[in-house]
Amino acid sequence: MSPSSSRSDAFGFLVARGPVAAATSGPAWLQAMLDAEAALAGAQADAGEIPRPTADAIAAACHVERFDVDAVLADAALGGNAVIPLVAGLRELVGPAVAPAVHLHATSQDIVDAATALVVRRSAEHVGDGLRAAVAHTARIGARYGTSPMISRTLGQHAVASTFGAVTTRWRDGLTDAAAAIAATQHMTVVLGGPSGDGTSFGEHHDRIADHFARRLGVWIGPRSGGHTQRSPTAAFAGAWGLAAAAAAKVALDVVLLAQSDIGEVAERADGAGGSSSMAHKHNPIAAISARAAAMQAPGLVSTLLHAAGGHELERAAGAWHAEWPALDQLLRVTGSAVDWLQTSLERLVVDPDRMAANLTRSARLADH
Amino acid sequence: MSPSSSRSDAFGFLVARGPVAAATSGPAWLQAMLDAEAALAGAQADAGEIPRPTADAIAAACHVERFDVDAVLADAALGGNAVIPLVAGLRELVGPAVAPAVHLHATSQDIVDAATALVVRRSAEHVGDGLRAAVAHTARIGARYGTSPMISRTLGQHAVASTFGAVTTRWRDGLTDAAAAIAATQHMTVVLGGPSGDGTSFGEHHDRIADHFARRLGVWIGPRSGGHTQRSPTAAFAGAWGLAAAAAAKVALDVVLLAQSDIGEVAERADGAGGSSSMAHKHNPIAAISARAAAMQAPGLVSTLLHAAGGHELERAAGAWHAEWPALDQLLRVTGSAVDWLQTSLERLVVDPDRMAANLTRSARLADH
Amino acid sequence: MSPSSSRSDAFGFLVARGPVAAATSGPAWLQAMLDAEAALAGAQADAGEIPRPTADAIAAACHVERFDVDAVLADAALGGNAVIPLVAGLRELVGPAVAPAVHLHATSQDIVDAATALVVRRSAEHVGDGLRAAVAHTARIGARYGTSPMISRTLGQHAVASTFGAVTTRWRDGLTDAAAAIAATQHMTVVLGGPSGDGTSFGEHHDRIADHFARRLGVWIGPRSGGHTQRSPTAAFAGAWGLAAAAAAKVALDVVLLAQSDIGEVAERADGAGGSSSMAHKHNPIAAISARAAAMQAPGLVSTLLHAAGGHELERAAGAWHAEWPALDQLLRVTGSAVDWLQTSLERLVVDPDRMAANLTRSARLADH
Amino acid sequence: MSPSSSRSDAFGFLVARGPVAAATSGPAWLQAMLDAEAALAGAQADAGEIPRPTADAIAAACHVERFDVDAVLADAALGGNAVIPLVAGLRELVGPAVAPAVHLHATSQDIVDAATALVVRRSAEHVGDGLRAAVAHTARIGARYGTSPMISRTLGQHAVASTFGAVTTRWRDGLTDAAAAIAATQHMTVVLGGPSGDGTSFGEHHDRIADHFARRLGVWIGPRSGGHTQRSPTAAFAGAWGLAAAAAAKVALDVVLLAQSDIGEVAERADGAGGSSSMAHKHNPIAAISARAAAMQAPGLVSTLLHAAGGHELERAAGAWHAEWPALDQLLRVTGSAVDWLQTSLERLVVDPDRMAANLTRSARLADH
Repeated sequence: MSPSSSRSDAFGFLVARGPVAAATSGPAWLQAMLDAEAALAGAQADAGEIPRPTADAIAAACHVERFDVDAVLADAALGGNAVIPLVAGLRELVGPAVAPAVHLHATSQDIVDAATALVVRRSAEHVGDGLRAAVAHTARIGARYGTSPMISRTLGQHAVASTFGAVTTRWRDGLTDAAAAIAATQHMTVVLGGPSGDGTSFGEHHDRIADHFARRLGVWIGPRSGGHTQRSPTAAFAGAWGLAAAAAAKVALDVVLLAQSDIGEVAERADGAGGSSSMAHKHNPIAAISARAAAMQAPGLVSTLLHAAGGHELERAAGAWHAEWPALDQLLRVTGSAVDWLQTSLERLVVDPDRMAANLTRSARLADH
Repeated sequence: MSPSSSRSDAFGFLVARGPVAAATSGPAWLQAMLDAEAALAGAQADAGEIPRPTADAIAAACHVERFDVDAVLADAALGGNAVIPLVAGLRELVGPAVAPAVHLHATSQDIVDAATALVVRRSAEHVGDGLRAAVAHTARIGARYGTSPMISRTLGQHAVASTFGAVTTRWRDGLTDAAAAIAATQHMTVVLGGPSGDGTSFGEHHDRIADHFARRLGVWIGPRSGGHTQRSPTAAFAGAWGLAAAAAAKVALDVVLLAQSDIGEVAERADGAGGSSSMAHKHNPIAAISARAAAMQAPGLVSTLLHAAGGHELERAAGAWHAEWPALDQLLRVTGSAVDWLQTSLERLVVDPDRMAANLTRSARLADH
Repeated sequence: MSPSSSRSDAFGFLVARGPVAAATSGPAWLQAMLDAEAALAGAQADAGEIPRPTADAIAAACHVERFDVDAVLADAALGGNAVIPLVAGLRELVGPAVAPAVHLHATSQDIVDAATALVVRRSAEHVGDGLRAAVAHTARIGARYGTSPMISRTLGQHAVASTFGAVTTRWRDGLTDAAAAIAATQHMTVVLGGPSGDGTSFGEHHDRIADHFARRLGVWIGPRSGGHTQRSPTAAFAGAWGLAAAAAAKVALDVVLLAQSDIGEVAERADGAGGSSSMAHKHNPIAAISARAAAMQAPGLVSTLLHAAGGHELERAAGAWHAEWPALDQLLRVTGSAVDWLQTSLERLVVDPDRMAANLTRSARLADH
Repeated sequence: MSPSSSRSDAFGFLVARGPVAAATSGPAWLQAMLDAEAALAGAQADAGEIPRPTADAIAAACHVERFDVDAVLADAALGGNAVIPLVAGLRELVGPAVAPAVHLHATSQDIVDAATALVVRRSAEHVGDGLRAAVAHTARIGARYGTSPMISRTLGQHAVASTFGAVTTRWRDGLTDAAAAIAATQHMTVVLGGPSGDGTSFGEHHDRIADHFARRLGVWIGPRSGGHTQRSPTAAFAGAWGLAAAAAAKVALDVVLLAQSDIGEVAERADGAGGSSSMAHKHNPIAAISARAAAMQAPGLVSTLLHAAGGHELERAAGAWHAEWPALDQLLRVTGSAVDWLQTSLERLVVDPDRMAANLTRSARLADH
């Protein structure tokens, strides 16, 4: 049975929502690996190592539609990564004359790590869009209700009078920080290291090839001879996406708490959404709840990535590298889902300034006691 | 676009391997929810609350093949869980006469939590089988090579002479402990709490209904009126499966280290597997590497589950409950994959007593310095 | 500068509270190691390997008051564990005639792991007491206010009428499960493995010595020849204490939420506690807040322990073993602190049935909309 | 019993090593809080809100030596943070005329968060120094042995010939990235928000006061009215220090693996260090092992901080804020310890080019098979 047909995720509605889900699909990952192979051939042509028509022939074959995705993913189990069957398939596609120029001097990790940088970049663009949309929506809510007086709540207790504008300002700032953190991961550093990781397999033009490779991929090239097992790019990615998930979680938490029946200062309103299987009168802030649930997956995934990042031994890690893949893939998706759910929550949000005023009055009575 | 068609996992070969992948598919989860609905109706018939034929009619409709899985999972996003659309579909299937008896007095969490117990039980059976097979294979290797002298290695340094039997004994013990821990999760406690969680919606026969419900599902019924938000079953599950993943990781780590070219006391041998995209002479212990990579996902998932378990507020959690689902689903799969990969590794394992002897002799020379 | 004088914890009031703090102090750990050395000598006398008076002389010296704790802890850095300087000191204390019988045939890990079992056992007794006290207090509150009607809250929304008894029942059940989980760690399995871990250094009486050793320590002896690097005891410990911390966190979360000014159905009342640096009228549920804060440390520590448990290579781990120590030590303390804070919170708890009734009435008005 | 006297850490030699231990002591934290109070008074004088002599009198009292540290830390348990007793003590010290100007318009979180920024900055300076020293030492080793041929090892298998210079380059790059990440946390953003978090308590000169406050502390001031519960500074800190710990762990792992008896290409040599309690001939790379052990604590702490960062509700968090403190404190220390241990390891490192050459020759023989 093929890997993809064995399951459709029961909880994808929660943690594989929004455009990042498609940007991290199996085909999307394989396309990114093919993009890296095409960029490599192109860079070697740029450096005069292989003829331009050879590179063009390789690039022409680097389209995932030309591959049997399920078969490649199934064969990935044999060598421990998808590049091995992908390169075999690519060589077959381009024919014997061009085949020797495919994956020339490279090793699987050159391609997988470059593909990772591409998938992260593409996902980061989507999440950046989502965060900007959330910020814009927050600004609209703030513009409309920002001056509404409300009681501030510290440690769950009524504190002193404030305004709803302080809430929306806080949301905007957190989401803006999140967007900046995500944007900083759009150009992950990659290495063109070859079998030993030190780049010597690429010969005297290694530096030029690496520069062209990075430019073609739109990523940054790492230090020349340090190899694949220095994982600060992975760790930096983990920290940044973890920050973004936390920012989304905080806003969603505020929505959930302000939407409590006992507070009722905001609510999510949408046709068909938020109902209960047993209580027709209930109106649950499902989008904020889902944003929280998706975002709560992130810290554990960050810790997995950091453990892995610190565990790459010698010139190629026997486990820690492979362990990064599903955790990174998942961290992209859960953060993307959290942001998408949050956008939905903010779009559904209705604000009740009257209830804010009533709670504030009530608070004054409590303080009098 | 349906949730399931948007992606086939790029890294499923690593972390969705073995029988647990199918046992945790979207259809498998929905079937488990339908099993819970059928058990509920059956239990209510057992207690004389609804007519037996009504319960039978419900049970007859509780087959996932009769539902549009993708549509149900897409609609799950509206109310925040799959039970809401599933119950709607079920009521339509059984017709207006029987419909009122569907999901009677229950709430979504009654069903989702019971389905979780079923999916865990089914997955536990598979992982238990895998662990027993791994133990048996370890015993066979031990029987054949257990008396081979080898140097023990502590903190990476040659220590004193030992035998390979000490290694296989250690592996066997760890995997046996893992099997016991997994087996202890086959009967997760569930609650039949209804909308408020305290079971009162089920009326005076609550206890009898709950007992029948649990018996029909093959799980344990929890304390009667404590509700859904006391999550020691989730936490106990997390700990047990985390233990099993760690046990598998340890054996895989030993294989990877003993298979180092510089040690060479064991190797994985299999046609077609373990090759390199750049180095034909290499022979990588891919199955052990993959087992480690899958198992390394577990601790982060356990921490997510424990955070969630401690964060269920009041009578139903607004996020922490939903956060459990993907983490639990993933923990089942990564542990299942780790055990499956480990089985493969042990099946491929060849032991080299001559190399052990040579390394031991060499060690004596080192100690002489 | 000695290790102990360099700092007094700024946040010990939060995470080193209650009797577990003393049970996990530096002197307490060293005493546990000395207890293990005394038990080893005793067991070897029991088995006839060394003279009884020799064992008695060793036992007589095994009191931490006879050692310079700071010096031992400073010297621990040289060999990577405290047993090395402790054994040196012990040999000096007992004099040259008895010295050769100290730590006979053992290795550091025999002693450190046994000491860990002792520290866990002693801490578990304290936490068990704390949990039982919390359960008793919960029962008293339940007995007094259990029949008070209140609105149940699911996903933050008013659901249907329930009683406060459902809340206290849930608390009691969670804390009872926690006590059972903690109690199961009172007899951690230990190994007497010697330098290679396979026990052969102890000669033909290894099994008898190991049995006497375990009996004297009040712990369980592990399988005979599997060595030190099979860490299911560590993983089981981590899961159990993680479960207990989650159980405490859940109760504390309920207190914090029910104590919100907007709900006000419970409050912590204590002279001098719960004030604000800026708002005199505030009454913060500080003990519940602190319980949550302490308990939130646990999941990350559990994940550290599980990562370590799966990473013990070959016959002694070069890092993963050492990594267990501070995480385990900390998990004991944060869980102990969470339980202690929770006890305090429950002792301070006042329940307001009038407010419950008022909120319930208000809820009926909300449902009418 | 005072908090500080109840324990001296058993494992401080491992995870409270180097200058960060002192920079994160209880007195160091209280001094940072006093520095924040002094800066606040100074800033208010700068803005003309209080007389300069009043601010000077406050600053003159803000020295931790003038406080009973244990008493303050014990009293911290009453209100849930140390600022409350510290402000009480400070007001007493300055006398009734000046007392009203102490902590004017501020809330505890203003001070605790600013103190955190100071403790992080001071710790970052130490860790930066340590990383630079490690980089320098790596460069020296590289300059001396960089051209030594050695076999590269990928997935534990001999790959192709490389040089030791590739190893030291990789180490240098990772540690350089770590230093950059740490340096970026030297100016954490803080907020001067007052009781409601929106800064209004500080009146019309809030912005000026906040600017002076930040300048005096050498930190950055956050957006003006967003309050305390937007925690991207905490999340960014966590990611950066997690990255640094991973970088240190990777270098230490390489040392441990290259020092294996079966490889022997490097070793740690130091008088008195690295011995065994049972095997005199062993030479363990204790400093690298300890660096790994300390660094392995980091990912779990990062996940705790990210969970907390995403869980700050409304205007002040009832648990998530308090949960940050011990985790942040500990993350500073374990990362500081890992870097300190790594420095020690690199200073002790001896390189064996002859063994490298011998292993490379042996590798050629293996490939011939």
